Amino acid sequence: MDWNHEDTIVALATPPGVGAIGVIRLSGKSALNICNGIFPMKDLNIQLPNTLHVGQIFDNENVIDEVVVGLFRAPRSYTGEDVVEISCHGSPFVTEQIIQLCIRGGARLARPGEFTLRAFLNGKMDLAQAEAVADLIASNTRASHHTAMQQIRGGFSHELMELREELIRFSALIELELDFSQEDISFADRGSLRDIIRKVGIKIKELIGSFRLGNVIKNGVNAVISGLPNAGKSTLLNSLLNEDRAIVSEIPGTTRDTIEEVINIGGILFRLIDTAGLRDQSGDQLEELGMIKAREKIKSAELVIYVFDVTTFSPEEYRSQVEQFSHDDINFIMVGNKIDLAREETNREKYSGIHSLIFVSAKSVYNLSELKKEMINNIFKGDLQFEHTVISSTRHLTSLEEVFKILQELVEDIDKNISGDLLAVDIRRVLMHIGEITGEITNEEQLDFIFSKFCIGK
Amino acid sequence: MDWNHEDTIVALATPPGVGAIGVIRLSGKSALNICNGIFPMKDLNIQLPNTLHVGQIFDNENVIDEVVVGLFRAPRSYTGEDVVEISCHGSPFVTEQIIQLCIRGGARLARPGEFTLRAFLNGKMDLAQAEAVADLIASNTRASHHTAMQQIRGGFSHELMELREELIRFSALIELELDFSQEDISFADRGSLRDIIRKVGIKIKELIGSFRLGNVIKNGVNAVISGLPNAGKSTLLNSLLNEDRAIVSEIPGTTRDTIEEVINIGGILFRLIDTAGLRDQSGDQLEELGMIKAREKIKSAELVIYVFDVTTFSPEEYRSQVEQFSHDDINFIMVGNKIDLAREETNREKYSGIHSLIFVSAKSVYNLSELKKEMINNIFKGDLQFEHTVISSTRHLTSLEEVFKILQELVEDIDKNISGDLLAVDIRRVLMHIGEITGEITNEEQLDFIFSKFCIGK
Repeated sequence: MDWNHEDTIVALATPPGVGAIGVIRLSGKSALNICNGIFPMKDLNIQLPNTLHVGQIFDNENVIDEVVVGLFRAPRSYTGEDVVEISCHGSPFVTEQIIQLCIRGGARLARPGEFTLRAFLNGKMDLAQAEAVADLIASNTRASHHTAMQQIRGGFSHELMELREELIRFSALIELELDFSQEDISFADRGSLRDIIRKVGIKIKELIGSFRLGNVIKNGVNAVISGLPNAGKSTLLNSLLNEDRAIVSEIPGTTRDTIEEVINIGGILFRLIDTAGLRDQSGDQLEELGMIKAREKIKSAELVIYVFDVTTFSPEEYRSQVEQFSHDDINFIMVGNKIDLAREETNREKYSGIHSLIFVSAKSVYNLSELKKEMINNIFKGDLQFEHTVISSTRHLTSLEEVFKILQELVEDIDKNISGDLLAVDIRRVLMHIGEITGEITNEEQLDFIFSKFCIGK
Repeated sequence: MDWNHEDTIVALATPPGVGAIGVIRLSGKSALNICNGIFPMKDLNIQLPNTLHVGQIFDNENVIDEVVVGLFRAPRSYTGEDVVEISCHGSPFVTEQIIQLCIRGGARLARPGEFTLRAFLNGKMDLAQAEAVADLIASNTRASHHTAMQQIRGGFSHELMELREELIRFSALIELELDFSQEDISFADRGSLRDIIRKVGIKIKELIGSFRLGNVIKNGVNAVISGLPNAGKSTLLNSLLNEDRAIVSEIPGTTRDTIEEVINIGGILFRLIDTAGLRDQSGDQLEELGMIKAREKIKSAELVIYVFDVTTFSPEEYRSQVEQFSHDDINFIMVGNKIDLAREETNREKYSGIHSLIFVSAKSVYNLSELKKEMINNIFKGDLQFEHTVISSTRHLTSLEEVFKILQELVEDIDKNISGDLLAVDIRRVLMHIGEITGEITNEEQLDFIFSKFCIGK
């Protein structure tokens, strides 16, 4: 894609559709003059920055709308350029007219993410921060919002900067050694070099390890509800949902074919997927196809909630239905349902050796909060710590994994007493991969790829 | 509904959904303080009006978003009250969080149209202008936009004000006469009274007459395409649409079941409705049901486009298929299709007596622009004059019809030399009905009805 950053760009910044107001954003060298051409009320060039101006947008003699114009001057704007925001009535017809007027006045339609790209290019934010803008807009839970906000505010970038400084310190020592290589002096004590690399490596490993959490926070948890027919799966699904049903409608693109219902537990989205009851071969071909599908869903799930009826459960059921999951290393919770119907003397011995076991009554909504807690614990194993930096981008993961690989090689090379110039090459590669994340090192294709995933107007 | 205008109200002002930015609007006495509670960056109370402030929204210690806050002070704001507009990232999760924070800070969620209601109550606009705000937001063509904009800018209100002044002049003369009624003096010359009433009546009649146009501008024209099978109806539909297909997707709620396709001709929406070919009783019961349905559609259409094949057309076809429409006083256009296949010596005599006749070739897109012109002319009979005031609200129509009725009675009463006090009663009724339109005279139920049709946030 050919980005021309000299152009003034324009786009609708608010969601498409009908609303009370719509906001059209202009950014670039000619933003003020283009707006002046259709907003004759005031000359924006002589107005103070960060001010609002009420007036009318004209198409020649025709009044298109009565608007409020917000004025930002470079570099104190979102993009770092001159920016004008026209707040008009929220009719798609009106916003389209005004955008067309801006284009006739010399602006061009912004590409997806182009405002944020300019903010990045003008040093208003680094690349990791810019990427988090898209995550923030897409965030739909407390956790995904928190992770994106932390990244926008530079939490992740700050950690990388600290690591980078450590590595540059290392690099400086090596380079110094190379300068004096003729004299065969070893400035860089191999032991302390090794310590720096190990310390950075531990931190990188932590960040890599946070991806599983970050991914779940960003994309939610696929939780399959499995069990024999009549175990009370649907009742459980409904009971879980009733308490939080509101969130269901807030999730865009919820495809009911594959995703049954979405529930927000403790700020994390769980996609509860109901499956066909798993029972021994029924002879019915269609039903068996359904079970194959159910087993596939289980394989790709992050969590299986296996519901059984405590009044009929037997260790045999456990063995035939559930044990295989535990061999496959799948997270699962055993939910003993209908506990309200169980006789007091229920023999708990038959459950011995079964982990992650919770007794509930889906019908009388008993102990569901315990189940929810267990769902969170089971997935996060106690690391749902919002204080820690969490990565959620596969792009970042790939770069960090690359960094970690080179760091491991470096430790080995130091142990093998490899010469400083070779260490320096590796350390430069590490710095490059870190720079890719924050955008110090980048290329057009990479930027195209990152920003093409943004919406237009951001 | 119980409107409390002392409260500070809050709502999302931008369309729902995901976008680059979302705007949350606060209006009322506590707007600044409520924002201060979540936006600790600056004390808005000591900032200049019409200024923009960059900062962060906090929920206790948690940063919810980085935002721009726009500040307007009473009475120089949309509502006439203190107004704060928080421009945040366009995530439904973020906007919802900020709205909730405002509510916790003491605001309440605004009802549909409540911001505009307050603008009306605070004298920022009259009722007719306020109603036009909803029309402007819903406008989707040049004509509907123009009509709404003209009404917002007070064109209609201004005309009513002029009529009102004439009537008040009349009223003053009558009242004066009543004051001196003991002395049997006639201040008000009956001839000039009659002239005033007639003059006002003519203007009211014009406004009433403009409703047909205004309604069509606001709601579009239902145009049924009729004709025998193979006359080329579908080809014509496609050819008409190909030139303007883009508009089709811009119309929200286009139900394909009853509305076939929408086309914007000269700023007016035409809903082109394809019908089953009308032919003589086929004996097939289902087909005859289809034809009954087609004839029903024709009865409720504003325009019938009757397509015939010039190579097979006969005056008998005209008589059996079309003549009935002309008796029913339905607007129709006769479209002679396949003119490219007609021999040069086509006997035009057989078309004598057929009005609104256009020859086209739908297939080779010949003369379609003439057809479009004719569609506009046929509907508007030359009164598509954007300069004139056009009414488009049934509420206004009802009031104006009431006014006209009383004015007619007044003329009769003057002719009958009815006493001044009775005339005065009627003239007060006329002023009341005019006042209902502009909102000088109003009641809560009426306001509820008008503003409940608005979207929330406006």
